[in-house]
Amino acid sequence: MQRLLSTVAAVAGLATALPAAAQFQKPEDAVKYRKAAFTVMATHFGRLGAMAQGKVPFDGAAAAVNADIVARMSVLPYAGFVEGTSGSEKGSPKAKVWSERAKFDAAAKTMQDKVAKLAVAAKANNVDTLKAAFGAAAKACEACHDEFRNE
Amino acid sequence: MQRLLSTVAAVAGLATALPAAAQFQKPEDAVKYRKAAFTVMATHFGRLGAMAQGKVPFDGAAAAVNADIVARMSVLPYAGFVEGTSGSEKGSPKAKVWSERAKFDAAAKTMQDKVAKLAVAAKANNVDTLKAAFGAAAKACEACHDEFRNE
Repeated sequence: MQRLLSTVAAVAGLATALPAAAQFQKPEDAVKYRKAAFTVMATHFGRLGAMAQGKVPFDGAAAAVNADIVARMSVLPYAGFVEGTSGSEKGSPKAKVWSERAKFDAAAKTMQDKVAKLAVAAKANNVDTLKAAFGAAAKACEACHDEFRNE
Repeated sequence: MQRLLSTVAAVAGLATALPAAAQFQKPEDAVKYRKAAFTVMATHFGRLGAMAQGKVPFDGAAAAVNADIVARMSVLPYAGFVEGTSGSEKGSPKAKVWSERAKFDAAAKTMQDKVAKLAVAAKANNVDTLKAAFGAAAKACEACHDEFRNE
């Protein structure tokens, strides 16, 4: 956990130190990157959800690995939210991401905290512990989507 | 490094324990996932390349973080190579991935070893150490692309 948190802090620090746009040559590269990072994160998060919801048998080892990947991925997408990449189609970010950036960043931070806790909870090898932590993380995802993503 | 290697081993073990297809509901989900994982990996690998090639100033802290992300991402895409997802368009995998799967897996393993070494080398805070390890990793990427990917 300590190691995970220090990696998370290092990536977050790096993202803050560099202007986000400076990390991508073109805005479309940033969009492709953030979508890709969310796709990987959502895939592993979905596997935890399937276990939490009893759709697949609980597997403690698989839960731990999947949750660890989710936590590590959770810090990556945000560097990809560079200015001028809002949209109006389903799934794209609202302009509010940039006009209320501090609020958006706080929502991202809440999600990152919840998935870091999920990564710890998933190591308990207990389906009820997983369910509780998964539910809290899912709520943080949804809260941000409801506010900042076009449906 | 030890922690990194144990995560890598855990993910690799998990991938082996489960039939790859069982991890994805539809083949197109597997394709989307593997492309996404490669996109994230390539973005961070590209940043190391820019430093190794002197296109951007060397930054030891950034190199270490980027290389760590590359190494962690390197184990993810392969679960997405499920049967029946070869193609003929540029960038898609040749059927050979499946007809010569052991060779493909060995090429993947070589790349994973080289990027794990790159993650260690990047912590040395020395541009020449980075260059050498980057070159070896890039060669492993290219070898697999030349053999298994449509150009």
